[in-house]
Amino acid sequence: AISDLVNGGGKRLRPLLVNLAAMFGDYEQEKMIKLSTGLEIIHMATLVHDDIIDEAVLRRGESAAQEKFGKDTAVFIGDYLLSRTFNIFIEILAHQSLLKLSKTVRLICEGEIGQYQKKFDFDITISEYLKRIRRKTALLFGFSTYLGAYESGLRNNNLHHLYNVGLELGMAFQIQDDILDFTGNKEIAGKNVGQDLKAGVYTLPLIFLLRDKQYQGRIIRILEKDDPEQKDINLIINLVREKGIENSRNLMIKFLEKVNNHLAPLPEIKAKKDIIDIIESQLDRKY
Amino acid sequence: AISDLVNGGGKRLRPLLVNLAAMFGDYEQEKMIKLSTGLEIIHMATLVHDDIIDEAVLRRGESAAQEKFGKDTAVFIGDYLLSRTFNIFIEILAHQSLLKLSKTVRLICEGEIGQYQKKFDFDITISEYLKRIRRKTALLFGFSTYLGAYESGLRNNNLHHLYNVGLELGMAFQIQDDILDFTGNKEIAGKNVGQDLKAGVYTLPLIFLLRDKQYQGRIIRILEKDDPEQKDINLIINLVREKGIENSRNLMIKFLEKVNNHLAPLPEIKAKKDIIDIIESQLDRKY
Repeated sequence: AISDLVNGGGKRLRPLLVNLAAMFGDYEQEKMIKLSTGLEIIHMATLVHDDIIDEAVLRRGESAAQEKFGKDTAVFIGDYLLSRTFNIFIEILAHQSLLKLSKTVRLICEGEIGQYQKKFDFDITISEYLKRIRRKTALLFGFSTYLGAYESGLRNNNLHHLYNVGLELGMAFQIQDDILDFTGNKEIAGKNVGQDLKAGVYTLPLIFLLRDKQYQGRIIRILEKDDPEQKDINLIINLVREKGIENSRNLMIKFLEKVNNHLAPLPEIKAKKDIIDIIESQLDRKY
Repeated sequence: AISDLVNGGGKRLRPLLVNLAAMFGDYEQEKMIKLSTGLEIIHMATLVHDDIIDEAVLRRGESAAQEKFGKDTAVFIGDYLLSRTFNIFIEILAHQSLLKLSKTVRLICEGEIGQYQKKFDFDITISEYLKRIRRKTALLFGFSTYLGAYESGLRNNNLHHLYNVGLELGMAFQIQDDILDFTGNKEIAGKNVGQDLKAGVYTLPLIFLLRDKQYQGRIIRILEKDDPEQKDINLIINLVREKGIENSRNLMIKFLEKVNNHLAPLPEIKAKKDIIDIIESQLDRKY
């Protein structure tokens, strides 16, 4: 089951961020390979447990672990991956970084619990959404750049800016993911369109409509149904595509601007150009 | 959900062992309260995830978390408890103890996976069973006494013996638990009789019968049924009560003797008498 996960690919953005951030300091390849592997494994562990909760059928174009091996095995896979990650990190990390790691993992858990508690809640606000994705996604992005930077000897301003580069990029990344849940193509995105919507996870593009007096009535009437038909779901998807995407995209761009602002004071090295490439690729990412 | 777990009670044997072992060294109450809390929380986290796998209905006489709140919430509860424990331990533990902790958690996971893989396997041997319960239960008992002793300044022989006191007591404890799955009384044990059996987890009392040519045929014919009736289950339970308990009890007593052997060279303090009381209470524990 774990080989499936490893071979399933993924963008490997978090390991990339660890390494790019590290290049602003004294880059030690061997150490960074271990750290970035650890971070990708934490990410995998959270994906596997997420997919249990969301009853996801597809992940990265393949059957999700919980679908293929059952929820039971998926529980173990996540636990095992998490325990292996702690093994790796405890072996190589300084006390300070370990504290930050364990705090990050705790907050990720709290983010997931928060998302679960807000399921099927039409009244969710944009600020609640932003708080949720901060915990669910952005903190681990931020921890990636922080870890690469800190463990390569960076402190103070450069460390602060690199941490925020990761954090704000994570916010933009999750918003784009949530846009793709409505606009994406199943074949390219590797997961079913409207998957979050059906699971009751209401994300930014829908929240914009739910806060809009003109549409909220129609949408809530559909969402209130016990078992909405696919044509109801499609109706919402189409409405969101027309009316919810642009606002979401604008907010995503605001976060990318924050990334740029934190990037500006950093030295002009190759890694900086690579991060700018990542920012630009966010804008029209399809999966 | 977490309050339920805390208020649900339990024997709190692991925290007790941390503290008793610590009393052989320089006992610091404040520190030991934190460490023993952390260990009990790890134990709770594994119970919650275990109950998902085993589809347990009862835990400590109350609805198991997975039954009461659903598998989804139970996944989060376990993750959250585990992440909080790492928080506590990273704050107060020395590097050496952290390494041992993360290795222990990894082996517990592997023990659970091993148990899952051996589900419904009639060919399981006694030595496979012992290896499984070592990982699933005994290692955390051993880690409890080790941690209390190590963090109270003990090294070498005394540390070695206290670690083994915990480890072997854990073996005996799990065998007694597995005996109670057959002989126990639902009201006293706080879980359904034959729960493991129905979940396909074959434990020592049944394994003794499965290795016995005289009974294996009858038992396997029942276990091979897709959906055995309660009267079939009762038949196995009665057969095990008659023929599998005595051997199991004798093996448990062997492990208690090992505990005694490791206890013997330790100094004669009050904590030693308390451990002897725990050993004696194992012999006729009903829950």
